[in-house]
Amino acid sequence: MTTIKDSVHDHIEVTGVAADLLDTKPVQRLRRVAQLGTVKLVYPSANHTRFEHSLGVYYLADRALAHLGVEGRQAERVRAAALLHDVGHAPFSHNVEELLHRRTGLYHDDVGGLIERTELGDVLAAHDLDPERVAGLIGGDGQYGQLVSGELDVDRMDYLVRDAHHTGVPYGTVDHERLVRELTFVDGELVLAEGNVQTAESLLVARALMNPTVYTHPVARISKAMLRRATERLLDAPDIDPAGVRRMDDPALLVALRSNPETGAFAERYDARDLFKRAVWVEYDDVPDRVRELDHEEVRDVETEVAEACELDPEAVIVDVPAEPSMKESTTEVVVNGDVRRLEDQSPLVTALRTAQRQQWRLGVYTTRAATERVGTAAADALGLDIDGALVSDVRRRAHTTLDEFTTEAE
Amino acid sequence: MTTIKDSVHDHIEVTGVAADLLDTKPVQRLRRVAQLGTVKLVYPSANHTRFEHSLGVYYLADRALAHLGVEGRQAERVRAAALLHDVGHAPFSHNVEELLHRRTGLYHDDVGGLIERTELGDVLAAHDLDPERVAGLIGGDGQYGQLVSGELDVDRMDYLVRDAHHTGVPYGTVDHERLVRELTFVDGELVLAEGNVQTAESLLVARALMNPTVYTHPVARISKAMLRRATERLLDAPDIDPAGVRRMDDPALLVALRSNPETGAFAERYDARDLFKRAVWVEYDDVPDRVRELDHEEVRDVETEVAEACELDPEAVIVDVPAEPSMKESTTEVVVNGDVRRLEDQSPLVTALRTAQRQQWRLGVYTTRAATERVGTAAADALGLDIDGALVSDVRRRAHTTLDEFTTEAE
Amino acid sequence: MTTIKDSVHDHIEVTGVAADLLDTKPVQRLRRVAQLGTVKLVYPSANHTRFEHSLGVYYLADRALAHLGVEGRQAERVRAAALLHDVGHAPFSHNVEELLHRRTGLYHDDVGGLIERTELGDVLAAHDLDPERVAGLIGGDGQYGQLVSGELDVDRMDYLVRDAHHTGVPYGTVDHERLVRELTFVDGELVLAEGNVQTAESLLVARALMNPTVYTHPVARISKAMLRRATERLLDAPDIDPAGVRRMDDPALLVALRSNPETGAFAERYDARDLFKRAVWVEYDDVPDRVRELDHEEVRDVETEVAEACELDPEAVIVDVPAEPSMKESTTEVVVNGDVRRLEDQSPLVTALRTAQRQQWRLGVYTTRAATERVGTAAADALGLDIDGALVSDVRRRAHTTLDEFTTEAE
Amino acid sequence: MTTIKDSVHDHIEVTGVAADLLDTKPVQRLRRVAQLGTVKLVYPSANHTRFEHSLGVYYLADRALAHLGVEGRQAERVRAAALLHDVGHAPFSHNVEELLHRRTGLYHDDVGGLIERTELGDVLAAHDLDPERVAGLIGGDGQYGQLVSGELDVDRMDYLVRDAHHTGVPYGTVDHERLVRELTFVDGELVLAEGNVQTAESLLVARALMNPTVYTHPVARISKAMLRRATERLLDAPDIDPAGVRRMDDPALLVALRSNPETGAFAERYDARDLFKRAVWVEYDDVPDRVRELDHEEVRDVETEVAEACELDPEAVIVDVPAEPSMKESTTEVVVNGDVRRLEDQSPLVTALRTAQRQQWRLGVYTTRAATERVGTAAADALGLDIDGALVSDVRRRAHTTLDEFTTEAE
Repeated sequence: MTTIKDSVHDHIEVTGVAADLLDTKPVQRLRRVAQLGTVKLVYPSANHTRFEHSLGVYYLADRALAHLGVEGRQAERVRAAALLHDVGHAPFSHNVEELLHRRTGLYHDDVGGLIERTELGDVLAAHDLDPERVAGLIGGDGQYGQLVSGELDVDRMDYLVRDAHHTGVPYGTVDHERLVRELTFVDGELVLAEGNVQTAESLLVARALMNPTVYTHPVARISKAMLRRATERLLDAPDIDPAGVRRMDDPALLVALRSNPETGAFAERYDARDLFKRAVWVEYDDVPDRVRELDHEEVRDVETEVAEACELDPEAVIVDVPAEPSMKESTTEVVVNGDVRRLEDQSPLVTALRTAQRQQWRLGVYTTRAATERVGTAAADALGLDIDGALVSDVRRRAHTTLDEFTTEAE
Repeated sequence: MTTIKDSVHDHIEVTGVAADLLDTKPVQRLRRVAQLGTVKLVYPSANHTRFEHSLGVYYLADRALAHLGVEGRQAERVRAAALLHDVGHAPFSHNVEELLHRRTGLYHDDVGGLIERTELGDVLAAHDLDPERVAGLIGGDGQYGQLVSGELDVDRMDYLVRDAHHTGVPYGTVDHERLVRELTFVDGELVLAEGNVQTAESLLVARALMNPTVYTHPVARISKAMLRRATERLLDAPDIDPAGVRRMDDPALLVALRSNPETGAFAERYDARDLFKRAVWVEYDDVPDRVRELDHEEVRDVETEVAEACELDPEAVIVDVPAEPSMKESTTEVVVNGDVRRLEDQSPLVTALRTAQRQQWRLGVYTTRAATERVGTAAADALGLDIDGALVSDVRRRAHTTLDEFTTEAE
Repeated sequence: MTTIKDSVHDHIEVTGVAADLLDTKPVQRLRRVAQLGTVKLVYPSANHTRFEHSLGVYYLADRALAHLGVEGRQAERVRAAALLHDVGHAPFSHNVEELLHRRTGLYHDDVGGLIERTELGDVLAAHDLDPERVAGLIGGDGQYGQLVSGELDVDRMDYLVRDAHHTGVPYGTVDHERLVRELTFVDGELVLAEGNVQTAESLLVARALMNPTVYTHPVARISKAMLRRATERLLDAPDIDPAGVRRMDDPALLVALRSNPETGAFAERYDARDLFKRAVWVEYDDVPDRVRELDHEEVRDVETEVAEACELDPEAVIVDVPAEPSMKESTTEVVVNGDVRRLEDQSPLVTALRTAQRQQWRLGVYTTRAATERVGTAAADALGLDIDGALVSDVRRRAHTTLDEFTTEAE
Repeated sequence: MTTIKDSVHDHIEVTGVAADLLDTKPVQRLRRVAQLGTVKLVYPSANHTRFEHSLGVYYLADRALAHLGVEGRQAERVRAAALLHDVGHAPFSHNVEELLHRRTGLYHDDVGGLIERTELGDVLAAHDLDPERVAGLIGGDGQYGQLVSGELDVDRMDYLVRDAHHTGVPYGTVDHERLVRELTFVDGELVLAEGNVQTAESLLVARALMNPTVYTHPVARISKAMLRRATERLLDAPDIDPAGVRRMDDPALLVALRSNPETGAFAERYDARDLFKRAVWVEYDDVPDRVRELDHEEVRDVETEVAEACELDPEAVIVDVPAEPSMKESTTEVVVNGDVRRLEDQSPLVTALRTAQRQQWRLGVYTTRAATERVGTAAADALGLDIDGALVSDVRRRAHTTLDEFTTEAE
């Protein structure tokens, strides 16, 4: 047994298969993968890693299993999955995940191959656990997969509290101890027990408030877009293997970007926190449907077109079209008067938060400070944005509506 | 100057008129008035007082004034009002306020007379401050009255954070430092500056989550209803002066209730936390309009009628009809794109929370454990509640829907 | 089972005999006994009660028992003792304990009679637990009594953390979770396991820093001395029964002091926080041995003598001679290299803290602000204090040496 | 002005010269230098950086200046020095500082050259501040240099609280707000005002408890020794410039160690947290004076000798002789009865903590797990350690005496 001190959950006892998994390279690597990628450029204290988060998820899973009365092999499997649920993350966590998916076909929770290929599989086997079933749990399969990956998974409970603790933003402070205690299975579905509509709402609200304040803070979005663009250039280099990049840690990717001539300029900007600025920042309803549906290549074409129109290097223009708003927590199920009900059928908050989320959605175009005006006009033109005369300033005026804007240095 | 250590805001420096007000009896009395009345019967750590809260409000007012650039006499007046804003509270804070209002015509923020009558007026005068204007600020008058009593007052910011700290319920954890920094005046209205729709929403959400979990928790409501009923009996005693009761502190009222033969039985129950149970617990839509509009005397008539029907002592039945749901924070104003807008026009959350609040509304009828069934049936009958066959159990089924139910001992 | 939310330990599950004990009057009474007596006059947030502390001690005992592998009847007995360990406290906790001991022969942990006389005994019996053995554990008897009352008891771990939380003074923040995990029995002695000299030291240091900052803060000492004096007068009244006073709660004693003509003046001062001031404040080495050894009656004689010399009412002079410094934690035992050793033999800190404690010891004489000079001189004379010429001011100069002086209003 | 959210001090407003310094590369680089080097291998949450710490020091300096009434140019200079006080740190903070000093002659606070060479000098000049004087303040020169580097500097106050927050070890929780408020100048010396002997003691105690638990935790020492050894090898490589290594950030050094064939094996171990184990671990009094006085080259000779004797690669043996114990805080000055006194003359704790510190001192020899026995014997021999027969096991027995041993995986 290993006892580890954690700044969020205090002492965490790691036992059984988890104690052995802890000493493997894929788990130790998570010490060098930032939990929130470039968010640290907005909140300087947000340097926490996937490693401590994985320990936290392991801890909450263990508590939840105890409350649910799950024991033995089944429980060991879930604990292993909890500790391993993030081993598949690329450097900088979600920041370059989509990009690597296009090149490798893998998302961060596609870990079957990784477990099989590495010592992880051996450790699991030594504890008589089937690697495939553990990988399945990480992907959310089966009744117990819901604990690891689902609307009520302990992953979410840990990261909300942990991200709040490390950013200093209080909104994520959910009552995780209560949540873990109130989990129950009804007909194989993981739900919150009677009397917890509000507990479920608080989880939803925490997520909804953390989103624009932390996860999609504009400065985090800009730096993430820059990192993604630079990593894409890196992947275009002749001797670079996407699978290898996926298994790098943050320091390795950062140094690789510094070393490569195509990406050195980005690395220099990143190191100096000399970020692009917003040239366009438009609300959902002002963006034509077809623009929101552009695929990756089409977006790159627009970037090239705008850069050319402005006589800029193509690297100097980034068009950032977020995915359609969605809200996984809305399907959370709660027992109400003895029946299992979806939270969205029970709580008026779900619809409201969905609307709020859509109101917060923004298409962004980023470029160097000097070029914002030119690029703004050209991009609005290229994208067919419905913005009259006072184009950029109008866009700007709306920018501040629903954002927490710390570290205004970046604006 | 006096420096006081506070468990919420750390060091609080009290200067000028506030330092002198601190040493007066009406302010010191607040050390013995519980901030949350009977809520301590639900959350045993919630023993904080109006005194520490008043210091907190003073502290936040002082910070807000600094950010707003208000100085001199005007600022002193606001600081005095902040420290004094609760001196008019009756014992157990809001618990018996309505009752005493019926007998004295005064609410807790009607403090003009109190300031005039006591040393408070002298201290204000010695600092060249007009007692009437200070009393006016406490009532919310004028531009600066909004800081002390309004949708964005510092009172609310302190109590949410303080009540969360002392109950252990994390939902009230608003970012009070940010709130205080973002206050600004536009055309004499206190509003949140540009970029704070979300900051305003977080305040609203905190209030909405704390409401059913803490402020209107059913056990708090039952014990409050019992306290109110006992205090009413006490006021009916020949030699009791309502104005005197209003100026008691918690220990005095408690001992008075123990000593009076009419209320001794209640005091014994209160001391042993041997509370009434719910006989009826009905949602808003199942209560006829005319029942929701019953005045105090009519409610007492129903209680008597039900008690008689069940051959119980009239003291054994309490009908508890809460006021219509309302949401003061919804009129909060925020600057959006340079215009001042009402939060309810800007945020879809306001309507949702209003709906949620109405969903949480419950009419309650309370009695001894043994009599719940009988009283339930009789009360449903007397009130004309639209509950078919399985009357009480049906009512019961709904009871748990949206409540956090700690200390189930009381249920 | 009852789950209670605590502001220190979060959710506390109360089960078995403890759940039944919770509903008894002697335990519920602890909701109305302040944990730190008059310390709230120094730290306004320190309104926590013996009730929440008792829950905390129960919680830590339960955790310790789990770590120690103690189960069944034995564990139930310890849990009962943990929850009941403070039921014998008089109002205002330790403040009037010595005084009541002189009249009743009982200290707060003499609870055998109380358990026998009240429903507590019945509840214990119903759970097949011997009341006498539970009372014995509270008194520290036997191997398991050390968990409830001893150098390493969980009582201490809870109150240091809880008092720090509620006063806002960070010094009491011990690592209680680590302490509980490292407890072990060696030859029937409760000790800290190998590798915990420092853990033991941290407990000692926390106590040593909390002492003068919180527990013996001069303002707390003055108000406590005044309360003690007034209670003594109350006990002299013809119809007052010391055993009855011992079973009062704080509100009852406070109102009794207000009502009694002999003590009404004190109560008025207390309510207005209009406290006596220091007339004499002398270090240990400047006080003759025979003065430090004066018994209660002799001290009262000195008070009378000084009052007469100054032509003051005898109530206006209080001589406060603290007990000899002692340090229970110094006998803590720790496993070092496989042997059980006393902390004082292992840690140089023990001697240092003992010296520091003696340096902080002060004899105080208190009186009204107007009389401090006169009383100071007369008292120095009566006590034969070795203070040359500049008597009182000299005494004053030393006063500030080692004190944290918040709320200077009282000085 | 820039407002930054910090997880320790909440909102930090950065103004004037500091706001401009923030955007420079040398300051931004601190985002990628871990505050506690390899301590994160013991406490996984300890990923905080020199950047957030520098902001914290800036914040506390600003508060201290306000309390001290220092304004204008002088204050700007101190604020600049506070923000810049750590720009001279090598990667992994103190871990390789001594090593680089041998090659470059520079310690982390020798920043005159750095300021002159980089944009820092320009920014200071643009604000009309003399770079040399700012560098002097960082070195502790003059009256105000004491605020930045001295026994009572704000550096210490920030790192104790911040390291406690991020490791989860509560011992560093000093009352920093009180400390900052009580600073005062007497005859040009920065001291704590009257009544703060205990405040000073608490700072000393916090440092003394954090030392073995965090800063010199054995696992942190082993990993630091390994990192130092590997970095030394790296510096021996033909094309490596020590000054360049000094200006690297953590990712750059880590990747350099991975890439260099001489140090790749270390990097692999580091990444997998596959650390050396203790072969020898001896107390101060068992180490001959001449061993404690060995210089760097002599230590390397011993390492070679032991490795040869055991037929091991010279990289496989590390001899780690810590410096003589010292305690900077002991010279802290406090006003006592109007005189300025050294804390060591006033507090018995100073001597005790000095003794404790010497008791905690350990000489360590580290090697691979398989070789511990052999290397232990050979090293004891080579160093002439006075350990009879049961050499290594005896040494082992003492190992656990005063350590907090989390993450026992490394032992």
